[in-house]
Amino acid sequence: MLNIITGGAGFVSFNLAKCLLDRGDELLLIDNLSRGRLEYVEALVDYARTIGNSQKVLFEKADISDVAQLKFALSSIDRDDVEVWHLCANSDIPAGVEDASVDLRDTFLVTYNLLNEMKAKGWKKLHFSSTSAVYGDHGVEYLTEESRTEPISNYGAMKLASEAAIRAACEAFLDQVNVFRFPNVVGVPATHGVILDFIHKLKKDSTVLHVLGNGTQCKAYLHVSELIEAMLWIRDKDFKGYHVYNIGPEDLGVTVKNIAEAVRDYVSPSAHIAFGSGNRGWVGDVPRFSYKVDKLSQIGWTAKYSSTDAIRRAVNEISTQENGQ
Amino acid sequence: MLNIITGGAGFVSFNLAKCLLDRGDELLLIDNLSRGRLEYVEALVDYARTIGNSQKVLFEKADISDVAQLKFALSSIDRDDVEVWHLCANSDIPAGVEDASVDLRDTFLVTYNLLNEMKAKGWKKLHFSSTSAVYGDHGVEYLTEESRTEPISNYGAMKLASEAAIRAACEAFLDQVNVFRFPNVVGVPATHGVILDFIHKLKKDSTVLHVLGNGTQCKAYLHVSELIEAMLWIRDKDFKGYHVYNIGPEDLGVTVKNIAEAVRDYVSPSAHIAFGSGNRGWVGDVPRFSYKVDKLSQIGWTAKYSSTDAIRRAVNEISTQENGQ
Repeated sequence: MLNIITGGAGFVSFNLAKCLLDRGDELLLIDNLSRGRLEYVEALVDYARTIGNSQKVLFEKADISDVAQLKFALSSIDRDDVEVWHLCANSDIPAGVEDASVDLRDTFLVTYNLLNEMKAKGWKKLHFSSTSAVYGDHGVEYLTEESRTEPISNYGAMKLASEAAIRAACEAFLDQVNVFRFPNVVGVPATHGVILDFIHKLKKDSTVLHVLGNGTQCKAYLHVSELIEAMLWIRDKDFKGYHVYNIGPEDLGVTVKNIAEAVRDYVSPSAHIAFGSGNRGWVGDVPRFSYKVDKLSQIGWTAKYSSTDAIRRAVNEISTQENGQ
Repeated sequence: MLNIITGGAGFVSFNLAKCLLDRGDELLLIDNLSRGRLEYVEALVDYARTIGNSQKVLFEKADISDVAQLKFALSSIDRDDVEVWHLCANSDIPAGVEDASVDLRDTFLVTYNLLNEMKAKGWKKLHFSSTSAVYGDHGVEYLTEESRTEPISNYGAMKLASEAAIRAACEAFLDQVNVFRFPNVVGVPATHGVILDFIHKLKKDSTVLHVLGNGTQCKAYLHVSELIEAMLWIRDKDFKGYHVYNIGPEDLGVTVKNIAEAVRDYVSPSAHIAFGSGNRGWVGDVPRFSYKVDKLSQIGWTAKYSSTDAIRRAVNEISTQENGQ
């Protein structure tokens, strides 16, 4: 079995790839290395050797928003036992609000191109990393998979556009599709995100931590180890057709203030935390969300860590990473 | 007030433009003339003169999936009192299922490009023709604006992608957005659609009418005169922010068999109707839908014609059109 992972040199992919290697699967990682890192790929190659997985870990550097690069990256693959994990996307949400072309290209056209190639190759199984951002701002309402989708950022919009294109493809030529609506995900190797930002800020100035917004934004967080567990749990059900799952803990989430304090306590306990104004970090930021995950628990998976647990564990891990330990 | 209408030489636009001229508004019609017709534009110019509307009817031939053509079409417009009616889209749904690039370009990129230009121009009011196809196949469930959106055609997917991009733009730079989710719309001038197809078939062979599918597909139909009435009703509320409305009659709809019989009875009463198999005309065809339109009736508008009335009236009108009377 060959697993193709787009965004294959990124944070989530690294964790997914390790688990797939543990199962003895073969991997093709595709990444444009804009945020992904070659060292993660190298670490995966080493890991495969360590655990005695004799299958190959292939890597192709390609920007799949470019059809020619995508075709080239897939040109050597002439087999049918393929599952595609489509994880690549723009991960700088404010950048996409400023300039809509960022998410058009890096979040939507990558999906559109991939679908065309899957059709041409006859590959019928797709797993897609979508996001809570497809829902937009529902205030204090819990989000179920049936909740109205009204994204307020171009990132959320182009993830929803991707879902829509995938849904139509599932009618026409795909057989099995799982759409995972990720919450905020934390863990290592960290390449971006609020915890890493806070650690970097405190490393520059250990006396004060400046926070965008007033710190009251409140969101659900999941540790990457649990995310991967849930994704593989759903995949292993081997459902036919099109399936959408919220993945996350079922709690009210944690505030940015909580996260800032957790980082401060760990990295620089005497630092002062200075908040901005407003409850949005940027235009298109959703100030609050929490999931209902009944659909996922009905098939037997629930998160063991709360949002608070996930944050604490990740602060520890990311601090260690940044200290080069 | 300048109304810019994309797809301005099409069927719905023709009817909308007439009503806007009746109100004394100025028009800029933009169309690539792939299905729209210059004779409709000419008829509108004549109509403006007839009713003594001294405002201009401007026309620009442009394919707005091409940024340069869109920019050129708008280059002479240097004013702020502008509302945009974005009605252009691919209207050949099966073609878009065969080749996803059709709806990417003609249904989604037109929207994406238009939003970028509206941002650049500082125009803040947008009315958008979306579709029941964004919902996908919900079986016998009534569709409300809150229903799950899982389009099963690329047309529906790229309309949903357009809605998503517009929703995000409304967070960032638009002030007033109305999204109209059209049902099937009938009337004249007819350029495509099931009634016109049936009339053409009976003109070729008056003894038999071949119907795609088994004729049990059952959908809500609205006469174009009522559609325009509803669109202007919503627009005149002058709501701030983002608003989505199902527009249609609140009935169970009519079957393709009903439509075939209505055309047969009018055009060639002795013809035999030959049905195909299956309840879908093509992949991505939704076999059945009916709307809940409570949201629209709560602001004071309801359809006077049933789906059956709308079909009867349109069969009469389109037959007259095709007889050149």
